[in-house]
Amino acid sequence: MDSRAGSGKYRVERQVLDEQSLEELTKRKTLSEIHKPLTDCLKDSFRCTLPKLKRSVMSSCPVLYWLPKYSVWDYGMPDLVSGISVGIMHLPQGMAYALLASVPPVFGLYTSLYPALIYFFFGTSRHNSIGTFTVLSIMVGSVTERLAPDEFFLKTNGTNLTLEMDVAARDAYRVQVAAVTTFLGGLIQVLLGVIKFGFVGTYLSEPLVRAYTSAAAAHAVVAQLKNLFKVSPKRFTGPLSQVYTLVDLCLLLPKTHLPTLLVSSVTIVLLIGAKELNSFLSTKLPVPIPVELITIVAATLLSSTIHLNNNYSVSVVGEIPSGLSAPSMPNLSLFGDVIGDAFALAIVGYAVSISLGKTFALKHGYKVDSNQELVALGLSNAVGSFFQCFSVCSSMSRSLVQETTGGKTQMAGVASGLIVLVTILKLGMLFQELPKAVLASIVLVNLKGMFKQYSDVITLWRRSKIDLVVWLVTWMSTMLLNLDLGLAASIAFSLFTVIFRTQMPTYSVLGNVPGTELYVDIETHREAREVPGVTIFRSSATVYFANAELYLEALKEKSGLEIGKMIIYKRRQEAKQRRRERRAERRAKRQAKGEKRAQKAAKQHSGPPEISVEEDEADDWRDTHVDMTAAEEEEQSRAERGNGTVFVIPTTPRTPDGCSRWEYLKGGHPDSTSLGWMSELQDGDTTTLGSSSEDTLSRDLEQVSLGSLGKWTWDIHSIILDLSTANFIDTVAIQTLTNIFRDFSEIDVDIYFSGCQASIVEQLERGDFFSETLRKQHVFVSVHDAVLYCLNHRGAASLPRYDPTPALQCGTKF
Amino acid sequence: MDSRAGSGKYRVERQVLDEQSLEELTKRKTLSEIHKPLTDCLKDSFRCTLPKLKRSVMSSCPVLYWLPKYSVWDYGMPDLVSGISVGIMHLPQGMAYALLASVPPVFGLYTSLYPALIYFFFGTSRHNSIGTFTVLSIMVGSVTERLAPDEFFLKTNGTNLTLEMDVAARDAYRVQVAAVTTFLGGLIQVLLGVIKFGFVGTYLSEPLVRAYTSAAAAHAVVAQLKNLFKVSPKRFTGPLSQVYTLVDLCLLLPKTHLPTLLVSSVTIVLLIGAKELNSFLSTKLPVPIPVELITIVAATLLSSTIHLNNNYSVSVVGEIPSGLSAPSMPNLSLFGDVIGDAFALAIVGYAVSISLGKTFALKHGYKVDSNQELVALGLSNAVGSFFQCFSVCSSMSRSLVQETTGGKTQMAGVASGLIVLVTILKLGMLFQELPKAVLASIVLVNLKGMFKQYSDVITLWRRSKIDLVVWLVTWMSTMLLNLDLGLAASIAFSLFTVIFRTQMPTYSVLGNVPGTELYVDIETHREAREVPGVTIFRSSATVYFANAELYLEALKEKSGLEIGKMIIYKRRQEAKQRRRERRAERRAKRQAKGEKRAQKAAKQHSGPPEISVEEDEADDWRDTHVDMTAAEEEEQSRAERGNGTVFVIPTTPRTPDGCSRWEYLKGGHPDSTSLGWMSELQDGDTTTLGSSSEDTLSRDLEQVSLGSLGKWTWDIHSIILDLSTANFIDTVAIQTLTNIFRDFSEIDVDIYFSGCQASIVEQLERGDFFSETLRKQHVFVSVHDAVLYCLNHRGAASLPRYDPTPALQCGTKF
Repeated sequence: MDSRAGSGKYRVERQVLDEQSLEELTKRKTLSEIHKPLTDCLKDSFRCTLPKLKRSVMSSCPVLYWLPKYSVWDYGMPDLVSGISVGIMHLPQGMAYALLASVPPVFGLYTSLYPALIYFFFGTSRHNSIGTFTVLSIMVGSVTERLAPDEFFLKTNGTNLTLEMDVAARDAYRVQVAAVTTFLGGLIQVLLGVIKFGFVGTYLSEPLVRAYTSAAAAHAVVAQLKNLFKVSPKRFTGPLSQVYTLVDLCLLLPKTHLPTLLVSSVTIVLLIGAKELNSFLSTKLPVPIPVELITIVAATLLSSTIHLNNNYSVSVVGEIPSGLSAPSMPNLSLFGDVIGDAFALAIVGYAVSISLGKTFALKHGYKVDSNQELVALGLSNAVGSFFQCFSVCSSMSRSLVQETTGGKTQMAGVASGLIVLVTILKLGMLFQELPKAVLASIVLVNLKGMFKQYSDVITLWRRSKIDLVVWLVTWMSTMLLNLDLGLAASIAFSLFTVIFRTQMPTYSVLGNVPGTELYVDIETHREAREVPGVTIFRSSATVYFANAELYLEALKEKSGLEIGKMIIYKRRQEAKQRRRERRAERRAKRQAKGEKRAQKAAKQHSGPPEISVEEDEADDWRDTHVDMTAAEEEEQSRAERGNGTVFVIPTTPRTPDGCSRWEYLKGGHPDSTSLGWMSELQDGDTTTLGSSSEDTLSRDLEQVSLGSLGKWTWDIHSIILDLSTANFIDTVAIQTLTNIFRDFSEIDVDIYFSGCQASIVEQLERGDFFSETLRKQHVFVSVHDAVLYCLNHRGAASLPRYDPTPALQCGTKF
Repeated sequence: MDSRAGSGKYRVERQVLDEQSLEELTKRKTLSEIHKPLTDCLKDSFRCTLPKLKRSVMSSCPVLYWLPKYSVWDYGMPDLVSGISVGIMHLPQGMAYALLASVPPVFGLYTSLYPALIYFFFGTSRHNSIGTFTVLSIMVGSVTERLAPDEFFLKTNGTNLTLEMDVAARDAYRVQVAAVTTFLGGLIQVLLGVIKFGFVGTYLSEPLVRAYTSAAAAHAVVAQLKNLFKVSPKRFTGPLSQVYTLVDLCLLLPKTHLPTLLVSSVTIVLLIGAKELNSFLSTKLPVPIPVELITIVAATLLSSTIHLNNNYSVSVVGEIPSGLSAPSMPNLSLFGDVIGDAFALAIVGYAVSISLGKTFALKHGYKVDSNQELVALGLSNAVGSFFQCFSVCSSMSRSLVQETTGGKTQMAGVASGLIVLVTILKLGMLFQELPKAVLASIVLVNLKGMFKQYSDVITLWRRSKIDLVVWLVTWMSTMLLNLDLGLAASIAFSLFTVIFRTQMPTYSVLGNVPGTELYVDIETHREAREVPGVTIFRSSATVYFANAELYLEALKEKSGLEIGKMIIYKRRQEAKQRRRERRAERRAKRQAKGEKRAQKAAKQHSGPPEISVEEDEADDWRDTHVDMTAAEEEEQSRAERGNGTVFVIPTTPRTPDGCSRWEYLKGGHPDSTSLGWMSELQDGDTTTLGSSSEDTLSRDLEQVSLGSLGKWTWDIHSIILDLSTANFIDTVAIQTLTNIFRDFSEIDVDIYFSGCQASIVEQLERGDFFSETLRKQHVFVSVHDAVLYCLNHRGAASLPRYDPTPALQCGTKF
């Protein structure tokens, strides 16, 4: 790659091509050939064939296809090993995340069981481990705590409220709330999947997801602090509730329960140490040490032995019912209260699952179908909610273990489910003495990865300011508006940045790179040369309704043409020209008459010559009232000054030498006929403009020059609008381009377009852009084609020939 | 333009250029040279100089500049004539639109007076006539009717409600509501103007504004029907209220008050007739006939003469207080109730005014400053609200009259204000007998233009489906959600279409146009030829977070490379290759040993030759468990089938001749070495693949070929990603491109980028896109440069030389 020697020559020789010629040359298909009629498309989609039906059944229940071909011999063992490893992780995670969701730990175990079984039937990812996930658990927790706060369940002692709480009633209601939220979220996912809206996941861009999960981790910490310190802060709702809760927590810190704090600290220290050891040994161990399970078992044993609960009043998990409960219908009356959260859960859960799934799919060379994933996840949630599960998605940590321990198919999920099932049925009650502080510590340590994401701020600061703003806005809105509204605000904001980016494009005037057919921004490239008489203009962004006006403004500014004034000036000049011609005619007539008269008058007294002058003046005065005239112009220039900064002094684009374009033309090319403007001003305009010599208008008019043959020209005769960056064209953009063409045509500046993609040309055709005057011949395939055409068409005659200095190793022939 | 003969030759000869070389050639400025440090920018903006201060004062109060230079001699007369014409229009419009705003007519006259005077001081448009406007009046009316419905003002008779209404109290409260809404709207406008948010006006695209005003006109008709028929429908609020109201109106139609209907019908017929006459005579009349004023005067005279109110109980305007009232503070306690409407009023009023202002400015060659206009309009509203005015903006009809009758400056607004002032002070009470039905008729007839906009639907259907959808959604949401929420929903939707457009781009594989350096979509251009071994890929839209994944999917599909599978396949093949080499080594050793043994065995019994075969098989079997092997592949292909439609059969891109790319390569170039894949499969792979001959995977693998020298190649060796359509690059896009580069490198496919704008290169640099392996030399200035490089670098040796057929009049030399 280094040596340019071998990169070869770029040699092209062809006719200049406009869009029309290109279409003929390439035999472009017509619109009707490319786009099938709507009826055909409908027919196609409604034609129901057996293979099509079979395919759609297969795709909606993938297990039907892969299970019959499942080879127990080949995959049985790896799936079992992997399933057991994952199952072992499910146990502590399920219980700990249930704490985050503010439901009793056993429901976390249920959540680790049922959804994984449903996913087995419908999922397309072979390595995703469906179950509890931090962020979703926090989101569920925020709903349950909002709809079922502690203070609703204070026990009534006769008619008085006591400070004792009806924990059982509270937990039962919380489980209901969690289930209905999960059910609704699942329904939303299924619905989105069925209408093929899998692409909504892409609206969660990486900076957004990372900021959101970082903020969610902060929420989780705030939520777990009460368990770590065993304090009871007040509950706050609405915006800023996190801040209030944190303040309240800090105020309560002196009341910390020391035995609980000791349990938490020891657990955290041990867990961090064990995790470090694990990652240190990761290359040597086939399966990571299940540190969390060991912690739970050890803590439970210790707790039972020294009776932490009774002797030191450390909160423990409490009663864990063994056995499974029958399914029950979620309480649908709560739908209205949880719809916002359900939507957020649906979107976040899906986004996490699909990104993990796609990663594994790429690594192992299979495909996950985003819409089917959405349906699978939705069904896992919806069906799970009948068994009091809370929202699930695939978890990074478990999925990674499932993959690295050799899991081959969704069968591993069933194996892990078996482990969980055994625990629920037989071993659950053993964990009754487990301190809650231990579970809170597990949550906290597992959040480590999310806290590492704060370093994104530094990376993004360097890489992309806009993405940084998205990060910060997402984080702030999630912290302040909480997890549901915050997500909505973040998505809206991140989509808005796209609009914003197209509203602040770079507008450039392009210049030729000497010796090539390339055109680059003359402001940022020192060696780019403007093409005399031709302004090449490009916006870095698509022109559409939100920036069409900015485009027009920028074009006026960059081309240095005050189009409005020029049109008026031109009309006035044309009127003057007509007057002058009329005058000349009359003079000629008079002269003819005069000659006759002279012949007569040779014998009579001669008439006063002043009459003819008066007539001229009268003519001039009449014009004042008929056309745009001196008075009008005076007014304009005055009001212009009156408007102050409203008036933008036209920029005289600079040539690379630093002299203005005008000087460049004058100095470099003494044969230029453009100097005509001097004689024009002396011809009569000086008298008009003399009175307002400081006028901004008159300064403008210095830009204006009179060509030969009564044609008016400015120092540019053509403008090329490079549309190569256009992604699409809407009706507003078409209108703007049409107006530009019309207005500039009026002052004899030709407008050409270049570099349109085929789809843009198609949209222009549909939008009735092309007409009798504005034809496809005005659209060129490249800027260089357009420049060559301009110079050939207009430039050669009235302007100096374009002859760029040949660069070192290059040479362009025009 | 017709003759192509004169369009000249396009001839270029230069080195192939990559981004690095281009930067050296053009001496591109570095990032730091282009962008000033933030501190400098801040310094600049805080540096306060006298001219700067002067300019900012001037720009915030334009009258200070133009008034001192106002020439009474030149502009006095035209402004006066124009002002009187506009003033005459103000009278009927003010009174009629007050009816729309549900306030007594005299407040419409106030609204025609005060804001115009304020605008005189701050406005920058010389032809905008500020005052009442249909759409704004309807919007104000919807607020007043919502917050002050009739049923709140039923008179209490002791403790019982009667059916009589306290009209005075109701109207007084409505005026208050209108004033506070106007005040808040004005404040919002001033605020937006001060923070230079004038660009928000551009979010109201033309289809949106036209649909919105059409819907507003429908609202106005529904609102006026009760006056035209003199019926009293119930009041409905919230979504669908228009529908309910209309249904109720229809049910009440039998109760129509016939004298009122007669008055309405006659007025409507006469007005339409007169207006038609007016437009017919428009070329001949210097000033249009003030048909509305004549109608009002005539109707008042007739009504007073035959006592329409007393004899026929036709509702009349009623008491009009003469004289002006003192200013009073708006009732700020209502802020919370009207904020949504105030926002909508602010945006709509501004959008209408600025679009009119810009039209006139372009026509007359002056400039309007969008931010200053926003401030001017905001102050007109805010100050006006102290005098009980309702929201104003410039009206199309009046502004056109102001311009066509020769108005030169904002002074015309003052002149029209004088007419209104005289009416309020002296003539107002004369209109007390004017029937309300006449005013309603005037409103209705004036809506004609807005109803004509329904034909947009047909135009847009042809021109742009997306703009049509914007139109329809705007209309529906405005009709169903009412004027404030409907506007918000419409703006959100129309911005969303931009996202949507970039999410459904056209992905194309480009082919060379024979004989040129141009590349066009091979699917839509029959004569475009694919470059053998090189896939050129382009998205018609910018790649960013919302479509980065779609881009990747499309690239995989269009290039026909199942990248995930190929990476695995390649790893397996490499492992096999290594095994084969090891085997060969061992055989060589054994042979060496064997020779020695043979020498010994010449005297002993000869050993069985099967041993070596067994060893080989064992070797193969061991590999099954170490590398990705047959079993793994089996599993993959099975699960692949299991996933049903999830699996996308790789498209083999077609060459223009209709044969697959592979056939093209094989058939067209018999010297091709790519046929190596045959021998490769026979070399040992056939045994592996034989068992799964129906396998989709094996079909994929047919695409795979083995090059010489143990290097694996597919039928393409390079992919060129054309980024010329990119408007910007975000971190997600950078990540995606980096991943593409990394993954394809792994299967020995080179990735090149081409056609990046300078700003894109800059963003790539900032985003750490370039690294040791992915350098600026991978970015080429054009597709053709990249193609030439690829062919030179990879194509020439292993693939047939690229030699396109020369086209008719063109010739490319490589």
